[in-house]
Amino acid sequence: MLGDGNVRYLIKFSYDGTNYNGYQRQKGLNTIQECLEDALTSINNKKKVIVHATGRTDKLVHALAQYAHFDLDVKITENKLKRAMNSNLPLDIHVIEAREVPDNFHARYNVKSKEYKYLLNMGEYDPINRNYIYQYNHILNIDKMKEAINYFKGTHDFRSFVTENKVKENCVRTITKATIKEKNNIVTFTFKGNGFLRYQVRNMVGILIKVGEEKIKPSDVLRILNKKNRDKEGVTAKAEGLYLVDVKFKKS
Amino acid sequence: MLGDGNVRYLIKFSYDGTNYNGYQRQKGLNTIQECLEDALTSINNKKKVIVHATGRTDKLVHALAQYAHFDLDVKITENKLKRAMNSNLPLDIHVIEAREVPDNFHARYNVKSKEYKYLLNMGEYDPINRNYIYQYNHILNIDKMKEAINYFKGTHDFRSFVTENKVKENCVRTITKATIKEKNNIVTFTFKGNGFLRYQVRNMVGILIKVGEEKIKPSDVLRILNKKNRDKEGVTAKAEGLYLVDVKFKKS
Repeated sequence: MLGDGNVRYLIKFSYDGTNYNGYQRQKGLNTIQECLEDALTSINNKKKVIVHATGRTDKLVHALAQYAHFDLDVKITENKLKRAMNSNLPLDIHVIEAREVPDNFHARYNVKSKEYKYLLNMGEYDPINRNYIYQYNHILNIDKMKEAINYFKGTHDFRSFVTENKVKENCVRTITKATIKEKNNIVTFTFKGNGFLRYQVRNMVGILIKVGEEKIKPSDVLRILNKKNRDKEGVTAKAEGLYLVDVKFKKS
Repeated sequence: MLGDGNVRYLIKFSYDGTNYNGYQRQKGLNTIQECLEDALTSINNKKKVIVHATGRTDKLVHALAQYAHFDLDVKITENKLKRAMNSNLPLDIHVIEAREVPDNFHARYNVKSKEYKYLLNMGEYDPINRNYIYQYNHILNIDKMKEAINYFKGTHDFRSFVTENKVKENCVRTITKATIKEKNNIVTFTFKGNGFLRYQVRNMVGILIKVGEEKIKPSDVLRILNKKNRDKEGVTAKAEGLYLVDVKFKKS
């Protein structure tokens, strides 16, 4: 388990994406990954640590439960690691839990399912939630959106819902849960599946908003899915309403 | 009604207090009042406008429904005024409603009641709500706090719950509603009354937290109230959990 002297840890963490250029490290930009790696350097006797998350989240996107693994040269108790990381991290990133895992565990390759939520406000503009709930501020037809979201359930080629520069990869994914709830003008879209392509959730929400606006019919979602081609019908919903809320892992 | 050619308007507005040094204008500091007055200058043909709110809120405190009146030299429809102000205001301040009022209406003197909420998180630290819910992150005895909060109801001299430099003024206020609710580790304190002294809500919450920590008994709240003297027992709860949520006006 210790292999070449390293110990592998898995952390569960949450973050406010407002002040970051997304999860993934990019030279010269403020990213979640860089903050995590910097927070670990002093814990790891000043030796650089590479953090492997379950996947990236885009600029302005939040996480209630993201996971990442990394190897440390030092052995530290799970509680101490959590506390040490939190004392080194900025206030908008928080380690919820740290635990030792077998050294063949991989946060990205072992993903079984991911769950995302997207929040939209149909009511009056809310300055307090401007970075946390998409301020759409108009009424949508919820019943039509509820009808439309069902077309996303199951296994489909989601080529019509990816960004144009990604169309070469395999776009087949399985969505096991796709729901819409509404309370006090706040609409919550929930999607759970075995994996999501870049911008897929925001593109699905974008089309559902067009259904809610009655610009297209619920059945148009099926037509667009079957087209298997990203085109001018696409709308990407704003990033700030999106949350990674849960990740489940395969038994390794 | 038009008096000396001016028209009086009342606005209902909300704000995220995170990036402000409180409501009230202070030289060289970023305040809500200054933003409102700046937003009105161009609407009022470049002539300075003085905005009178129902009262101030402190640094970092939020408002879901604050009100203010002001006089304009120009007559503008209520909807146009709302839209014009919102297009001139930063994204963290929002005018919900604007309406013309009689020129003897005064946002501060006509207040009948105010309602505040205070939010506290007993659960895991939440980076997304760090500026919107006080991150206490420990379990409190809710039943004891519910017993204690009842002592605040009714008409009392709240001298023990004001800041030390204010003890000369009349501190008698009437609290008509004082409740505590808890859901998913979020505690919501609600206070409604005919008026609140500076820091009064945060000082009442501070003492209730001490009750919840079982450091003092619920009945100690009555003892401290009767002492009519701010002393070392006082604790001021952090600003970021506090919201002005409603203001009612007397019929003028």
